[in-house]
Amino acid sequence: MPHFLRPSIRAMAGYTPGEQPRDGAFLKLNTNENPYPPSPRVFEAIRAALTGDNLRKYPDPLGTRFRQAAGRVLGVDPDGILIGNGSDDVLTILTRALVAEGGLVVSPAPSYLLYKTLADIQGARFQGIPFDSNWKVDPAQAVRDASVTFFANPNSPSGTMVDLETLAAWPGTMVVDEAYVDFADTNALGLLSRRRDLIVTRTLSKSYSLAGIRFGFAVGDPELIRHLVKVKDSYNCDVLSLAAATAAIEDQEHLRGITAAICATRTRLADALRKLEFSVTDSQANFVWARHARPVKPLYEELKRRYILVRYMNYPGYGDGLRISVGTDAEIDRLLDVLRTLL
Amino acid sequence: MPHFLRPSIRAMAGYTPGEQPRDGAFLKLNTNENPYPPSPRVFEAIRAALTGDNLRKYPDPLGTRFRQAAGRVLGVDPDGILIGNGSDDVLTILTRALVAEGGLVVSPAPSYLLYKTLADIQGARFQGIPFDSNWKVDPAQAVRDASVTFFANPNSPSGTMVDLETLAAWPGTMVVDEAYVDFADTNALGLLSRRRDLIVTRTLSKSYSLAGIRFGFAVGDPELIRHLVKVKDSYNCDVLSLAAATAAIEDQEHLRGITAAICATRTRLADALRKLEFSVTDSQANFVWARHARPVKPLYEELKRRYILVRYMNYPGYGDGLRISVGTDAEIDRLLDVLRTLL
Repeated sequence: MPHFLRPSIRAMAGYTPGEQPRDGAFLKLNTNENPYPPSPRVFEAIRAALTGDNLRKYPDPLGTRFRQAAGRVLGVDPDGILIGNGSDDVLTILTRALVAEGGLVVSPAPSYLLYKTLADIQGARFQGIPFDSNWKVDPAQAVRDASVTFFANPNSPSGTMVDLETLAAWPGTMVVDEAYVDFADTNALGLLSRRRDLIVTRTLSKSYSLAGIRFGFAVGDPELIRHLVKVKDSYNCDVLSLAAATAAIEDQEHLRGITAAICATRTRLADALRKLEFSVTDSQANFVWARHARPVKPLYEELKRRYILVRYMNYPGYGDGLRISVGTDAEIDRLLDVLRTLL
Repeated sequence: MPHFLRPSIRAMAGYTPGEQPRDGAFLKLNTNENPYPPSPRVFEAIRAALTGDNLRKYPDPLGTRFRQAAGRVLGVDPDGILIGNGSDDVLTILTRALVAEGGLVVSPAPSYLLYKTLADIQGARFQGIPFDSNWKVDPAQAVRDASVTFFANPNSPSGTMVDLETLAAWPGTMVVDEAYVDFADTNALGLLSRRRDLIVTRTLSKSYSLAGIRFGFAVGDPELIRHLVKVKDSYNCDVLSLAAATAAIEDQEHLRGITAAICATRTRLADALRKLEFSVTDSQANFVWARHARPVKPLYEELKRRYILVRYMNYPGYGDGLRISVGTDAEIDRLLDVLRTLL
């Protein structure tokens, strides 16, 4: 054990991402990837950007073209946008900017486990605020000395949302992680004009089908964004990802098409799982959270044996379940067929 | 000024990267980009990786194929390789893993300014060890309570190297940043078997002509690398960059061809600058450090007016100079023609 590592780094377990088998035989319903390919414009943009000059030169450190496009599409000030190498990079930047060693990171729980990992790396503490049985929290539960409170909204694994009134009333600096928001009915961008201590984060990994190119961004007060730029690596987004992300966000028609398809399949999946006596939470994301009176870990294992990956999750003090990404209709049919033989 | 930011973040100036005009009219000799395109195999690999499935799915978090290729080429254990989104990402990961808030980052000076920026972000202190007039340092100058000592080797702006005996004898945890080492006569990989508290970092931005795709890596003790993996973002390298980096490192013949050309042009550039009464340090990198009895800032400005960018650098307590990247012979001729009219 290297003695010169920070003790907090030595001690921490690290975040375990969902399994990413390189074997194409698996049906992957475990990491909330989009089953549909990205916009054709993304391929065109990458091919156009693929020149010797673009590869050998540094990319635009601020991603100006992307910020202008995203600003137009979302109706926000481009100067209030920070680009990131996936929204994990943005969440990392925010943690480093907001949380001192010994500080306190807070999040409703169960939620995205990365928030605790980011606290661990920073040498900070983490405190979860338990959701009630309807996946709600109340501003009265806010932790007074939190350096920042993260809300995954929609939340993982539940797919539920904390409503905008609760977010608006929540005291203290907050990050609303909207990785899944394009599958939901509402979003928190409208709160930004009322709160300068709110940052909204987005990713192109899920709704834009671009997990492979790593692109996310934050939206917030332009003055805050100027400080966050100091914390990011100068060239955190590469030239091909910037081209892809800009083309993707400019094709809102493609986004609407595939998110509508996924939301329709989500309803069908939830209904079918309920018929199999799963308890399924109504989801605003591209996955559903399914619990069962029978143990679900063996189900996860049996599915994996049949080359279907779902995410088995077990939260201390809460319990376990299966988080199942919404695939195509054919993929979900394959999953349901196997589940019916197992239950 | 957002009050909820960490005071160290509010106070810091931030790293200023070299100018990256999006206007293609500039001859860029300011950020040590490679004037030659990357290996043709890089383009093939990116085109082959450009599929809907690859874009919509997460990339391999550990970059196994790249690590195996790099391990073969460099003769190191693939498990001792950490992939990064540029070597800046690797340096960031190392700083977060090794330096606590209030810790101490040390580096010979003048050198790469990012080391101090990384200390600032971490809320740590920075201390420079002054190079002597021959750009040497002595292990007796080591700072006892350093959390880590960074050596840019070859160094920027000088292009000089601290010799391997000095590095071998240097006490304490050290990072040898070999961003420019493919233009040099030697490297520190051979020291890794003798020191488990040594990490060597590399980038594909310079010698492999891939600044645009952001790829770097660290080489060190496999046990240490396992801890560093906990600190990196899970998916810090995207699928196209991984494909490009793997193809690039597998084409050592291309690397040898373009680095040999650059080293030949470097000699020609240094000789010509000396004839213009510049004081030029012998360089082991893809740039030269040129000082002059006359003020050089006006020269930088006059060059910029003529669409030639070089890097003007001014180090407190040391002085200023021009750091000039080695371009093609034709580019260097254009620079020299203009300089002759200005001097």
